[in-house]
Amino acid sequence: MKIREVYLQETKSYANHTPQPRPDILDCSLGVNPYGPPSQALTAIREFDLSHLGDYPHSTAAHDAIIHYWRNQTTLKRENILLVDGSVSALYLINPLVAKPGAEVVGFIPSFTDMIVNVGMQEMRYVGVPPVKEDYTESVEALMAKMDSNTALVYIDNPNNPTGQVLSKEALMPVLERARELGAYVLMDEAYGDFITREESMLSALKEYPNLMVLRTYSKGFGLAGLRAGYIIASEELIGYLSKATNPYAMNELTRVAAAAAMTAEEYGASRAEEFARVKEALRQATGEALTLLHTDDRVPICALKHRREVDLQALLYEHGVLTVSGEEFDAMDASCVRLRIPKAQDANTLVEAVRAVNCAG
Amino acid sequence: MKIREVYLQETKSYANHTPQPRPDILDCSLGVNPYGPPSQALTAIREFDLSHLGDYPHSTAAHDAIIHYWRNQTTLKRENILLVDGSVSALYLINPLVAKPGAEVVGFIPSFTDMIVNVGMQEMRYVGVPPVKEDYTESVEALMAKMDSNTALVYIDNPNNPTGQVLSKEALMPVLERARELGAYVLMDEAYGDFITREESMLSALKEYPNLMVLRTYSKGFGLAGLRAGYIIASEELIGYLSKATNPYAMNELTRVAAAAAMTAEEYGASRAEEFARVKEALRQATGEALTLLHTDDRVPICALKHRREVDLQALLYEHGVLTVSGEEFDAMDASCVRLRIPKAQDANTLVEAVRAVNCAG
Repeated sequence: MKIREVYLQETKSYANHTPQPRPDILDCSLGVNPYGPPSQALTAIREFDLSHLGDYPHSTAAHDAIIHYWRNQTTLKRENILLVDGSVSALYLINPLVAKPGAEVVGFIPSFTDMIVNVGMQEMRYVGVPPVKEDYTESVEALMAKMDSNTALVYIDNPNNPTGQVLSKEALMPVLERARELGAYVLMDEAYGDFITREESMLSALKEYPNLMVLRTYSKGFGLAGLRAGYIIASEELIGYLSKATNPYAMNELTRVAAAAAMTAEEYGASRAEEFARVKEALRQATGEALTLLHTDDRVPICALKHRREVDLQALLYEHGVLTVSGEEFDAMDASCVRLRIPKAQDANTLVEAVRAVNCAG
Repeated sequence: MKIREVYLQETKSYANHTPQPRPDILDCSLGVNPYGPPSQALTAIREFDLSHLGDYPHSTAAHDAIIHYWRNQTTLKRENILLVDGSVSALYLINPLVAKPGAEVVGFIPSFTDMIVNVGMQEMRYVGVPPVKEDYTESVEALMAKMDSNTALVYIDNPNNPTGQVLSKEALMPVLERARELGAYVLMDEAYGDFITREESMLSALKEYPNLMVLRTYSKGFGLAGLRAGYIIASEELIGYLSKATNPYAMNELTRVAAAAAMTAEEYGASRAEEFARVKEALRQATGEALTLLHTDDRVPICALKHRREVDLQALLYEHGVLTVSGEEFDAMDASCVRLRIPKAQDANTLVEAVRAVNCAG
């Protein structure tokens, strides 16, 4: 059959490989808000006028809510916004834009695996920049050293998935500048960005850097993973290009209204920062022997652990009643690492005790 | 900037060019079910457990409903089904599968414009097969004459968009056979298929022809355009390949449940066939002078009209209170044509009288 070779190669995606959660297991695998969505979103769904479902989506509620949400960072028009059915869909939309023969994508490893896989599906090379320290600290300097005339796109998930570490705007500005010189785009994947402050988003640099794209989702901070909703913000020109290759009706009508309502709870994701930080501090206290908590921002509810020996850390934690994502699903990691998501406060002790037990077993 | 040239070229999509409907205008533009969705879908949404929205979609309700819906045509497994966020998204997913340099897509013109545009975005050539008669009748023979060693994919929207004509399974079987000999896939876009019978779907040929893909949507017969939901049925192997380049969580959790409920109203789309046929017959009676009703299946609620002179037919009908889609938005048509969708029975007379007035004005 006349099929592109790249489809015949093996790929990896952690979404397909994590064991199913059992009822007696504490599920810390998928990167969602453990508290689910704000009540505003649920009310909007309950009150939604179902007579609107027969027509194609036309609501501008989500666009307008996004404009309002970012009012202190930048002035947006609807034409700066492209709605997508979950931010992973945006990656599949953005990669083909730059997928010329020889084009390369530069980004940290580990990073969101589906991005790295899709770069390969577009027959581009992902130039992975490994961490520079044992605790997996990312180095912008190392990243910039890999940017050259082949670089078509720089991909940075910030906060990073899987570690949850955050790079500051100040640290990242030289990347935007250098990319502009090279004629390359910068995609800031801020999927976990709603757990920190809006001031920390790269979005405030949009007007100055037309090579910038910022990707956000409702799946994480806003707790709406089940609705599949996200958005790209970029220059009008760039949004116009991307629109040529995508469904003009992305984000269904009901989801647009629910997403808009969720955004009225402006601090929803960030409001748990202190709680998550307490749990992360407890995890840090529970590690230090066999286990290391890798570099992370304590406000972000994901983080990664590394075992000093070549163990299957996911299996060890599973034995202690906690489901995580294996480091095998990430570049620059292996089975001795896991990614985990901080659970609800009531379940935090189960997680901390499991980690402590594995740490002490050595 | 390092962007693929193809994004810089002009494209067309009728979804973006049709004038906005005014309150005093009868909207016959978008191809939806004028009666909206079945009550089963609305009840399912109202009764949906909103606590499921915090997690990524896991419901298999839609898969299982699809398997049941097609039980008399073929035996499906979940692995034969790929859910998509509206069937247009499926086209953007399928084209890259075959987009090798030099690969061609063969299909009728006019056909669904977004498909033809996206073939170009994938840097493939769309080999358009024009109608063979004045009434735009499609010829399978003419289509097969264009299939050759460059053909990677044959695209057939059946019922056809914009004309609403239907090709029989018997007529299409030689296309599947010839495509298989050539190592080419056949994509049957049955978006309007729920307005006719399931027996007429190409799906019953799936087991015999692993090069077949059947595309369906909930937007048309099931009246759920606002929910953005559809699915591809193909061999397990082919679904596996397509899954490598798409969001593993397509169709959100709520939509999966609503779509499954809609499918329990098995004859919902087809139940209006007689009503649509009466309106189409009235349209046929109202034409014949300046206007021709192009070849169409009377059960399908879309059809196309052609004016004998070089007029702007969309504008003429708009003056008479009816909004349609201009033929300019379709290959092998021009402004002297329009596509229209049969409205609710209560509004049929407005449409028929507008058509009669334009027809008689000559």
